[in-house]
Amino acid sequence: MKILVTGFDPFGGDKINPAYEAVKLLPDVIEGAEIIKLEIPTVFYDSADVMKAKIAEVKPDVVLCVGQAGGRASVSIEQVAINKIEARIPDNKGNQPFDTPVQATGDTAYFTNLPIKAMVKNIHDNGLPAYISYTAGTYVCNYIMYELMYMIATEFKEIKGGFVHVPFIPAQTIERPVDTAAMSLQDIALSLEYALAAIVTNKEDIQLNSGTTH
Amino acid sequence: MKILVTGFDPFGGDKINPAYEAVKLLPDVIEGAEIIKLEIPTVFYDSADVMKAKIAEVKPDVVLCVGQAGGRASVSIEQVAINKIEARIPDNKGNQPFDTPVQATGDTAYFTNLPIKAMVKNIHDNGLPAYISYTAGTYVCNYIMYELMYMIATEFKEIKGGFVHVPFIPAQTIERPVDTAAMSLQDIALSLEYALAAIVTNKEDIQLNSGTTH
Amino acid sequence: MKILVTGFDPFGGDKINPAYEAVKLLPDVIEGAEIIKLEIPTVFYDSADVMKAKIAEVKPDVVLCVGQAGGRASVSIEQVAINKIEARIPDNKGNQPFDTPVQATGDTAYFTNLPIKAMVKNIHDNGLPAYISYTAGTYVCNYIMYELMYMIATEFKEIKGGFVHVPFIPAQTIERPVDTAAMSLQDIALSLEYALAAIVTNKEDIQLNSGTTH
Amino acid sequence: MKILVTGFDPFGGDKINPAYEAVKLLPDVIEGAEIIKLEIPTVFYDSADVMKAKIAEVKPDVVLCVGQAGGRASVSIEQVAINKIEARIPDNKGNQPFDTPVQATGDTAYFTNLPIKAMVKNIHDNGLPAYISYTAGTYVCNYIMYELMYMIATEFKEIKGGFVHVPFIPAQTIERPVDTAAMSLQDIALSLEYALAAIVTNKEDIQLNSGTTH
Repeated sequence: MKILVTGFDPFGGDKINPAYEAVKLLPDVIEGAEIIKLEIPTVFYDSADVMKAKIAEVKPDVVLCVGQAGGRASVSIEQVAINKIEARIPDNKGNQPFDTPVQATGDTAYFTNLPIKAMVKNIHDNGLPAYISYTAGTYVCNYIMYELMYMIATEFKEIKGGFVHVPFIPAQTIERPVDTAAMSLQDIALSLEYALAAIVTNKEDIQLNSGTTH
Repeated sequence: MKILVTGFDPFGGDKINPAYEAVKLLPDVIEGAEIIKLEIPTVFYDSADVMKAKIAEVKPDVVLCVGQAGGRASVSIEQVAINKIEARIPDNKGNQPFDTPVQATGDTAYFTNLPIKAMVKNIHDNGLPAYISYTAGTYVCNYIMYELMYMIATEFKEIKGGFVHVPFIPAQTIERPVDTAAMSLQDIALSLEYALAAIVTNKEDIQLNSGTTH
Repeated sequence: MKILVTGFDPFGGDKINPAYEAVKLLPDVIEGAEIIKLEIPTVFYDSADVMKAKIAEVKPDVVLCVGQAGGRASVSIEQVAINKIEARIPDNKGNQPFDTPVQATGDTAYFTNLPIKAMVKNIHDNGLPAYISYTAGTYVCNYIMYELMYMIATEFKEIKGGFVHVPFIPAQTIERPVDTAAMSLQDIALSLEYALAAIVTNKEDIQLNSGTTH
Repeated sequence: MKILVTGFDPFGGDKINPAYEAVKLLPDVIEGAEIIKLEIPTVFYDSADVMKAKIAEVKPDVVLCVGQAGGRASVSIEQVAINKIEARIPDNKGNQPFDTPVQATGDTAYFTNLPIKAMVKNIHDNGLPAYISYTAGTYVCNYIMYELMYMIATEFKEIKGGFVHVPFIPAQTIERPVDTAAMSLQDIALSLEYALAAIVTNKEDIQLNSGTTH
C-alpha cells in the first residue's frame, strides 16, 4: 500500500507551518504501507496541480492532506469539504477568491472516504486527543480537500482520501493571546502516524459516536 | 410575501429553548412580509413532518429555521447542511441516530439559498454581532436544515430557505462554566428580525468577505 | 444609606464603555438606598482624585466601582486588588505605569469588604449569571479598586467598598473575533442592581462555594 | 546554589499530575545550581508541612512550587498568593476549606520575590509560550504559594520563592471538551528548566510589559 501525505508550506505571516513540518517527521513505512511525503504551496489552484501530478506519478492507494487550523487544540479529522472558497487573507500568490465554487460542475460537498472514526480512536488509544470536525473552513485547506475528493469522485475512483487539520505548535503562540492552544510537533506527528496506521488496518470504519448536540 | 419561521422546543435538560422563545417575540409583519411562527419538536423525523405540513398549508415564500447552538456568542447563519446525522444525546423522543444519512438519495450537502451575507450585514448595521457558520453540526439542527433544503431541491423549488443558530440566553449559563457566552432573548429576537428584513429586501446576496484562514 | 457607584469612561479605541453606561441606567433608589452615580476618567491617579473628592462630598456608606473586562461573559465581582499597576496600553492621558506600586506604603493587596457571595447569589436568584473573580488585572480597574480599599483602610474606615467588572456589550464585538462574549447593557445594569440590592440587605456575607480547583 | 522544586501529586480524578511528572524530568543541575525535587500531596496543611521539613533539611536558596491549572495553554508564573482558601472539590484527604485565611496573622497577599519577567522572557527566548498570571486561584496551589511566601516573610528571609502553574498534558484532554488546551510533558519540563535558568542568572528582574487592559 502506498500513502501520499501532503502538507502546506507557511502562510499568513508565520515562518513555519506545522502541517508539513509534522509530515516530514513521519516514518517512511507505517504498518507496512509506504509513506510518500509532498510539500504543497498554500496557493489555490497550484496546490491541486502539484498534488494531482504527484498522484499521477506515484499512484497512491490513499491520499491524506494536512493543513493548519490555528487555535484548535488537537488534531481534527475533517468529515466534509464544500464547493465554496472564500479567503479572508490572500494566499501565498495573492489569490483571494470570494464566494467561488471550487469546481463549477462539482457536488455541493464531498465526504471523506477514510475510516475517520477509526483514525480518531487509534489516536485516543495511543494517549493523544483528536476529534472529527465538520468544517474545513473556506480557505486553502477546504480547497485542497474538495479538489482531492472531486478527483476521487471523477477520476481516481480507487483512491481513499481525506484531510487532517493540525494545531499551532507552541512557538507560534508566543506572540498570540495567552489562551491560544498548541500541540508539540512531536505529538502532531505521532497523531498523524496513529491516524495513518488506522487507515492501513481498517478496511471499514468503526462505530464511535462523534455527534454534536446542536 | 409570507415567511415561515420555525423554532425548536427545549431539549437536553434545559427548560427553555431560546430558539422558539425568540421566534415568539418577532413582529407579525417585517418589511411588509407576513411572519408565520411554528414551534417544532426537537425530534428527528417528527420535526420535518410538522414543518412540511405547515409548508403545504401556508405556502410560504421563505422558510427560516431557528435552533440553539449553546456556547456560540452571537447569531450565526448557516451556509450548509450535510447528509449525515449523529446524535451525542437522544432527542426528545429518544432517537439517537448514528452515522446515518438524512435522505438516502439526497445530495451530500445543500447550501442555503438565502442572502446570508446581506443578513449578517443588516444585523451588523443595526449594532449587533453575527456571522456565517460553515457547520450546523450533526444533530436536529443540521437535520431540519437538510430536510428543508432537500424539500426545496425536490418539491418546493420556489421557496428560499435556511437556518440560523442562536446562543444560550444568560439564564441558561448560571450553572455552566463562567466563560460560557450568552445573548439576551431581546437581542436574539432583534437579530432574527434584522436577518428577516434583509431576506425581504435583498433579491440577490451582497458582497461581504466571510472567509476563514484555514 | 448612600451608595456611590463609579463607572469608567471609554478607552482603548472603544467609543463606549459599558461600565458607566450601565451605571447610568441604575434606579436612583435601590432597596431604600440612595444611588449616587459618578463617571470617572480611565486615567491613573486622576480617577482616584475624582472619586475621593466625591466621597468627601457625599459621605457614602458604600462605594462600588465598575469597569469593563472585555471578553468575560458575565458580571464578575472582584475579591482582591493588588499593589501593582502595569499598563499594556496607555490610559486616556497617556500614562503607562510599569511594575509600579499603587501606594508605596500600602499593603500588598486588599480584599473587598462587601458581601460578594450574597451579591453573586442575588444576581443568580434573579436569573442572570455572575461570579467571583480573583484578579482585577493590573490596569486602571485594579488601580481604582486598590485606591478605594486603601482609602477605606486608612481614612474612611466606616465605608464598605469593592469593584465589579462588566463584559463588552454586543455592539463592541461586531469587529472582534466571533467567539467574543458579550452581555446586553440592560442585563449588565440589572446585574449591578441585584448586586447593589444584596449589599443593602446583607450585613454579613453568606455561605456559597466559589472556590477554584487549581 | 540550591533550588528546591516541589510538584503536587494527582487529584480530582486525574491519574497523573503533570506538575510533579515535569519536575521529575528536570536535570539535576541547571546553570550550576543543584535541583532538589520533592513531590508533595495535594492536601491543604500536609503539603506545607512536607515542604517546610524539606526546606529545613536542605536549606535551599530558592523554592519553586509547581501545580496544575487545567485549561491554561502554557506555563504561567504567578505574581501573587492571597490569604484565602476555598475548595470547589475536596483535596486528597477530604479537606474542603471554605472562605478561610491561610494564616490568621498573615498579610492579605504576598508577591513572589522571583524574577518572574526574566523567567517568562527566557522561556520565550527558547521558543515556548509563557506568561505572568495574576491569580493562583483559591485551591491548594494558592495555598502552598501563600504558605511559602509567608515562611519567607517570617522565617526564611533569605529564600526566594514562587509558584508556576502548568497546563494539562494532551492525554488528560482526551475525555474533555475538544477545545481544552494542553502542553506536552517535555515542553512543560523545558519551560520549567528555562524558568529555573533565569532564576539562577538574574539577580534582579528585568523590564518586560506584562500588563493587562482591564
